[in-house]
Amino acid sequence: MFTTVLVANRGEIALRVARTCRELGLRVVAVYSTEDRAAPVVGMADEAVCIGPGPARSSYLNMSAILEAARRTGADAVHPGYGFLSEVPDFAEACESLGITFVGPPAPVIERLGDKAAARAAMAAAGLPMLPGSDGPVGCPDVAARLAGEIGYPVIVKAVAGGGGRGMQVVHEPGDLVGRFREVRAAAQSLFGDDRLYLERYLPAARHVEVQILCDQYGDGVYLGLRDCSAQRRRQKIIEETPAPGLPDDLVRRMGEAALRGALAAGYVGAGTFEFLVDGDGGFHFMEVNCRIQVEHPVTELTHGVDLVREQLLVAAGERLTLRQDELAARGAAIECRVNAEDPARGFVPAPGRITELRLPGGPFVRVDTDAYQGGRVSPAYDPLLAKVVVWAPDRPQALERMRRALGEFHAAGPGLATNRDFLLAVLDHPRFIAGTHDTSLVTGITEHDRARGPIEEASVG
Amino acid sequence: MFTTVLVANRGEIALRVARTCRELGLRVVAVYSTEDRAAPVVGMADEAVCIGPGPARSSYLNMSAILEAARRTGADAVHPGYGFLSEVPDFAEACESLGITFVGPPAPVIERLGDKAAARAAMAAAGLPMLPGSDGPVGCPDVAARLAGEIGYPVIVKAVAGGGGRGMQVVHEPGDLVGRFREVRAAAQSLFGDDRLYLERYLPAARHVEVQILCDQYGDGVYLGLRDCSAQRRRQKIIEETPAPGLPDDLVRRMGEAALRGALAAGYVGAGTFEFLVDGDGGFHFMEVNCRIQVEHPVTELTHGVDLVREQLLVAAGERLTLRQDELAARGAAIECRVNAEDPARGFVPAPGRITELRLPGGPFVRVDTDAYQGGRVSPAYDPLLAKVVVWAPDRPQALERMRRALGEFHAAGPGLATNRDFLLAVLDHPRFIAGTHDTSLVTGITEHDRARGPIEEASVG
Repeated sequence: MFTTVLVANRGEIALRVARTCRELGLRVVAVYSTEDRAAPVVGMADEAVCIGPGPARSSYLNMSAILEAARRTGADAVHPGYGFLSEVPDFAEACESLGITFVGPPAPVIERLGDKAAARAAMAAAGLPMLPGSDGPVGCPDVAARLAGEIGYPVIVKAVAGGGGRGMQVVHEPGDLVGRFREVRAAAQSLFGDDRLYLERYLPAARHVEVQILCDQYGDGVYLGLRDCSAQRRRQKIIEETPAPGLPDDLVRRMGEAALRGALAAGYVGAGTFEFLVDGDGGFHFMEVNCRIQVEHPVTELTHGVDLVREQLLVAAGERLTLRQDELAARGAAIECRVNAEDPARGFVPAPGRITELRLPGGPFVRVDTDAYQGGRVSPAYDPLLAKVVVWAPDRPQALERMRRALGEFHAAGPGLATNRDFLLAVLDHPRFIAGTHDTSLVTGITEHDRARGPIEEASVG
Repeated sequence: MFTTVLVANRGEIALRVARTCRELGLRVVAVYSTEDRAAPVVGMADEAVCIGPGPARSSYLNMSAILEAARRTGADAVHPGYGFLSEVPDFAEACESLGITFVGPPAPVIERLGDKAAARAAMAAAGLPMLPGSDGPVGCPDVAARLAGEIGYPVIVKAVAGGGGRGMQVVHEPGDLVGRFREVRAAAQSLFGDDRLYLERYLPAARHVEVQILCDQYGDGVYLGLRDCSAQRRRQKIIEETPAPGLPDDLVRRMGEAALRGALAAGYVGAGTFEFLVDGDGGFHFMEVNCRIQVEHPVTELTHGVDLVREQLLVAAGERLTLRQDELAARGAAIECRVNAEDPARGFVPAPGRITELRLPGGPFVRVDTDAYQGGRVSPAYDPLLAKVVVWAPDRPQALERMRRALGEFHAAGPGLATNRDFLLAVLDHPRFIAGTHDTSLVTGITEHDRARGPIEEASVG
């Protein structure tokens, strides 16, 4: 087993990973940007290294600074968290070439699954159900237009290098195809430095349902239930839950087995997520693989009683999985809400700032993953995630009650700071959400309804 | 169902009860002493009533002030928490006579079980295993001396009205019996206004193991596993855990069934705890019943996935239990540490004060029950409990690691404030605690060892 883990991330996930490292008796090295000097993980780590100025490209995306920090501190493993370098094959490879264990899948696996067109082909070959789409990248708009006609509208144009909701556009009319294609191509070039695109049939009223998988280095793997992440605003998840409400057991099992089959076919190692769309007829369709721990992993931890980061670390250290599929039992229901520092009254623009007042929810079966503290601040340099409020209960209706209560206790205030707390409460109270029959169109519907009514009365500082 | 619950308590338990009431859609009335004006539960409640000055006898023990608050606010139920009026039959009766539901057993049940000699007789009649002892109260020291000779030394002299570790003394030598008997009698008179005493064989190296039970108004009941509370300092629990380490399944079942049999025989309704001593040969012996929610109830909640306060409220409202013994499944292990504002370096004297710095632990499977906050204070008027740190893990070794990590994150500081955090960590690190083979003598052993070494280096402000 390695002895020192460098946590190559920031915010709540850095703290969360550091905590599990500590429980495993591992030394923890934190890295931080000049913006994050006062972050709790810096104080908690055994050693902390400043890796550059605020902008992520100068710090959390700066591979050489991070690898140099690992060398100086004697770190023999790196946990990348989510985002930043977590799915960059070059980083995984650089770690391994320096004899540092990268806590994630092997670089070639990240590379193959990160190319969304290649992943689609590989998963189709492994027998996973696919939406109609292009076989591989599509080079020119005219070919795309012809293909889209064969696939049937609406189609979605996606960047091969995209994922996580970025680098894609839906096209409803043949007349729009060429223009949108060019827009996405330009965006993909600028976002990812890779302008390759592919096409897929678009399902307007589908549910986003994903499978958590976990594989060791010896070809063993398990799936840990499904998460429904259909509550999304502009393709960004805001509320996630497990189990996926209303899905029949048989579908859950088939989706879990499909994901695991795909993972093992790809030579996957570690924790990962297979994202699917579930249509109104109970069909499911492969979307993409996330080669890392997810923001929403806590809901699975609460129902399954498993510390997924611990499992990641043990698998990375070469241990065999001790979890057995037939022994894994989910209990109850868990929901996560992402409380963001953003202002719903102003189109959800980020609203970071100093936190002069902070009251976090507590009590039975409530977990708050955050590194925010009173006197600290939400930096404008990064994602405005302020806290993940996660609850567990024996069933979904009780979990909804608990989440309402917990969000009701959440209070953050400060100059310029706003949160989406009240907006989250409004989503929780929507009849379709309560019924568990919502799909990815729900939140857009709510925000457009709000827009029609005019601005929300007041900034939703919770 | 009632609609408004008055929470007749303070501190962490008042907040914890209020949270569950809120989740059930109930209105919450808080009562508070002038000392507790700034308590979080006051801000969180729908209505809050000041019931008198700081000393408990003028406020939290002031029945008429509390009943008047209930009348004024239209409360139709009272939850008494633990301590204070939770086991005072007159209070339960007064509530019921005003048409207010008392969330606890019926007054006559509290009265019978609160008389420890009567409880002993009732439980012996119900077939629960007993230590040799007196049949009912013993009036005079000479009779006690003769009885003690029959029972065999060491014996323990206990107040009939005692419980929770107060009003008792161990006698090792016949020559001490009469003197100790008179001391306990005087203490019992002053503590409880009732000087009746009884005798029992004393087991010096026993484990304190208790059973959580839950009964409805229709004669149905369940037990929810065992808690080991052997880590006690001067008969006050400081670390509690479930399951009780190393007890064979068969013993667990027999103890659970015995407790439930006793509860049903007594006409018990609500949540309650049957306390037993377990000797080195695996024999178990009835000690007492606590007719209320316990401080340590969260460990049971975490392993069983049950909100015990919710169950209390539903049962009090006349609902039938929905929990079934054969469906109750405990998962993993949970440990609670009581972080007290007290100073181990000065004989554990209470060390209350203003809290100028407070960092509470967090992360996966960590729960902190507290109403402390930065800027608040621990009042000298009450019990110095600062926070309950509770962890869950798939097994006991992992739970111990998690607890060490969580306590390591705990930090409270302020003028005059000290905590037992480092002392708790020392107990967790004791080989007998790690092995799970400790009994009630463990903590005394550690503190006497420390005393022999001289004072601990520094005040243990965590």
